[in-house]
Amino acid sequence: MKVNTNPVRGTRDFLPADVELRDYVRETILGVYKKHGFTRIETPALENSQILMGSEGGENLKLIYKILKRGEKLNLTKENLQEKDLVDMGLRYDLTLPLSRFYANNQANLPAQFKSVQIGEVYRAERPQKGRFRSFIQCDIDIIGDDSYGAELDLISTTAEALSKLSFKGFKIRVNDRRVLRAMIVGAGFPSEKVGSICITIDKLDKIGMDGVKNELIKNEYSEEVINKFINSLEQLSKEGFDLEELKSIGVEEEVIASLKAVISVVSSQNGDFSIVFDPSLVRGMGYYTGMIFEIEYSDFGVSIAGGGRYDTMIGRFMKNDVPAVGFSIGFERIIAILQEKNFEIPFKEDKTALLYELKNDELLKVFSYADTLREKGMAVSLIQKQKKLGKQINRLGEEGFKSFAVYRENEEEIEIKDI
Amino acid sequence: MKVNTNPVRGTRDFLPADVELRDYVRETILGVYKKHGFTRIETPALENSQILMGSEGGENLKLIYKILKRGEKLNLTKENLQEKDLVDMGLRYDLTLPLSRFYANNQANLPAQFKSVQIGEVYRAERPQKGRFRSFIQCDIDIIGDDSYGAELDLISTTAEALSKLSFKGFKIRVNDRRVLRAMIVGAGFPSEKVGSICITIDKLDKIGMDGVKNELIKNEYSEEVINKFINSLEQLSKEGFDLEELKSIGVEEEVIASLKAVISVVSSQNGDFSIVFDPSLVRGMGYYTGMIFEIEYSDFGVSIAGGGRYDTMIGRFMKNDVPAVGFSIGFERIIAILQEKNFEIPFKEDKTALLYELKNDELLKVFSYADTLREKGMAVSLIQKQKKLGKQINRLGEEGFKSFAVYRENEEEIEIKDI
Repeated sequence: MKVNTNPVRGTRDFLPADVELRDYVRETILGVYKKHGFTRIETPALENSQILMGSEGGENLKLIYKILKRGEKLNLTKENLQEKDLVDMGLRYDLTLPLSRFYANNQANLPAQFKSVQIGEVYRAERPQKGRFRSFIQCDIDIIGDDSYGAELDLISTTAEALSKLSFKGFKIRVNDRRVLRAMIVGAGFPSEKVGSICITIDKLDKIGMDGVKNELIKNEYSEEVINKFINSLEQLSKEGFDLEELKSIGVEEEVIASLKAVISVVSSQNGDFSIVFDPSLVRGMGYYTGMIFEIEYSDFGVSIAGGGRYDTMIGRFMKNDVPAVGFSIGFERIIAILQEKNFEIPFKEDKTALLYELKNDELLKVFSYADTLREKGMAVSLIQKQKKLGKQINRLGEEGFKSFAVYRENEEEIEIKDI
Repeated sequence: MKVNTNPVRGTRDFLPADVELRDYVRETILGVYKKHGFTRIETPALENSQILMGSEGGENLKLIYKILKRGEKLNLTKENLQEKDLVDMGLRYDLTLPLSRFYANNQANLPAQFKSVQIGEVYRAERPQKGRFRSFIQCDIDIIGDDSYGAELDLISTTAEALSKLSFKGFKIRVNDRRVLRAMIVGAGFPSEKVGSICITIDKLDKIGMDGVKNELIKNEYSEEVINKFINSLEQLSKEGFDLEELKSIGVEEEVIASLKAVISVVSSQNGDFSIVFDPSLVRGMGYYTGMIFEIEYSDFGVSIAGGGRYDTMIGRFMKNDVPAVGFSIGFERIIAILQEKNFEIPFKEDKTALLYELKNDELLKVFSYADTLREKGMAVSLIQKQKKLGKQINRLGEEGFKSFAVYRENEEEIEIKDI
């Protein structure tokens, strides 16, 4: 039987060099997060269907991998069989929904201000394409139980530091607030119940441009006057040097203005080669955001490498009361792709030494002890049997990433470790 | 709607303290493995059904979580609908099968002697019970491409060192060889095609005792003479001080004897508080083992904490030719459970300081800078808004694990960091 040994379509095998880079990025990010007082938690990759399907995941709900029920629960002879008869759980498609369930389930054992890190695999049945996978890492920090913009500030400042540690330079943090978007939209004369759908159109600005946005709004039968008023206000707010205080004039609350000003002023004074700007056209797709939203754009590659925002009503869906929450997610896979494209070299990479030996019973104990002696000195030593063609073997070891080797010989006083 | 916020049955939410211990164990084991020249790889949790269902996973095949096909591929109105019409992939139930597929898929880019580490989640639809989970971590090292007992020695010696690093003492390594089992079974007069099924019976020795084994063999209609001869030989071989050279008399090859002797002699001379013994009754469940097999028993708890063996024909199922391979798996979840039961304290745990501040726009920049100054000194600092009842807040922070705190006050020359 011919077996297909490729990994499942849209997923990847990670070779040692891949894992090394991924681990380096993971540890660097985690190191910064921990220094800022965040603690790691984990939730299972499996969640009950009720949790997954009842969420505000938008398009992602269509991409959930569903798990077949088992044993007696699975009845294939049922009349008019539906998908829901077959499944009772699925794989998580993000980490925010599981975090909300986790918080509701464990609140009694969590701090009043809970600062969590999650780095975990999520699954989406996307159509595979370059840079888009069906199984990938998400890397989120969230602060739960803090309704002040101190939390946004903490998240943005921490994330910017993590990206800087990974040698990212010149990235741009864009900040907006859902309440600014609402004020602009309602202020222009759109019906307030249409805010969500109009946001979806504005979100396409990057792809279809202002004319495209305008045409889509016209097609949806909004009056040209309202549309023009909205576009005009969007352009006013987007002008360089726009004074946030002017947001008052379109009905944005003082409190919202103060939080945007504070975040922009503190983060722009932070050390590091990056900038932060107010961007009234920033929407962020998810339906659950309620306040400030933010995204980091890496100009060199013209892509977004991190995104997040405040979602004060999501956890309340699992509890008796709402709990304020805000999160920021680094696009782990995108960071990896960029670093690989830049031929990024991991600093302080540990060298490996090959200790070649012959399999003679009366020497083995000495060989193994000698390897341990080297390891105690801090070296990473791999025991490998010496082959007849030593030169060829050493060349190959060099190609495999070994930086040095030694040949064990019992009667030698000092065994010489040679560079490859 | 009342939502059930528990994690899926048989899976777990991990709180910060849980993750801290799990990470410590993971990093300790990984540290030892890397020092011995092993490199980490990763495979996806999803595998194609053809790979999973065609494997020699024995009982585990019944426990595979299957993923529902999507879109057009899913036809619920098909007549005489079967499970296989509904699924085309599933979640991995172990890490050895994915490793074999991985090796076959990536051999050209892997070292001649490939020493891999895998630490990853696997999934089994077990009946949940104490200490048995549906989603759990496996922690495997494997050496592929080395047919000598140097590989077994390397695995056993590395694993014993990792367990010692985790403060395990007095554990017992039991070693046997499938070829010894075969010699005993065939030598006693059982038909050679029954070796597998007789091994399954012997594997129950721990649970049902020698009388139980005998009764089961009698029930299977083997002659009492053959059974007695077998039990007699098992008892002879199990005697303390049994000389492995005597295995020759039951037809075990010189080469097998030499490898057992070498492994036992080298490992027993290794530093560390543990022992290694030959145990002719050791079977190890899996059908794919071909040579030496080994298991580590933690006497204090009477449980097995690691197990492995040689499987020289498994990778060949995915390739044109067989490739020698041997693996050793640490029971990660069991290690964690034992450490928790022993109230194990993580050494060098990093302390966290709470920096309490008030949300005043003109002070924020200074607060954030001050926090960074402390972090540059190596401290982990969490910014938290000061509450009115400071005493109560500090008590709670202490309960949450903070070891110290400071209250930011703009006009103070030096901010005092106090222990909690």
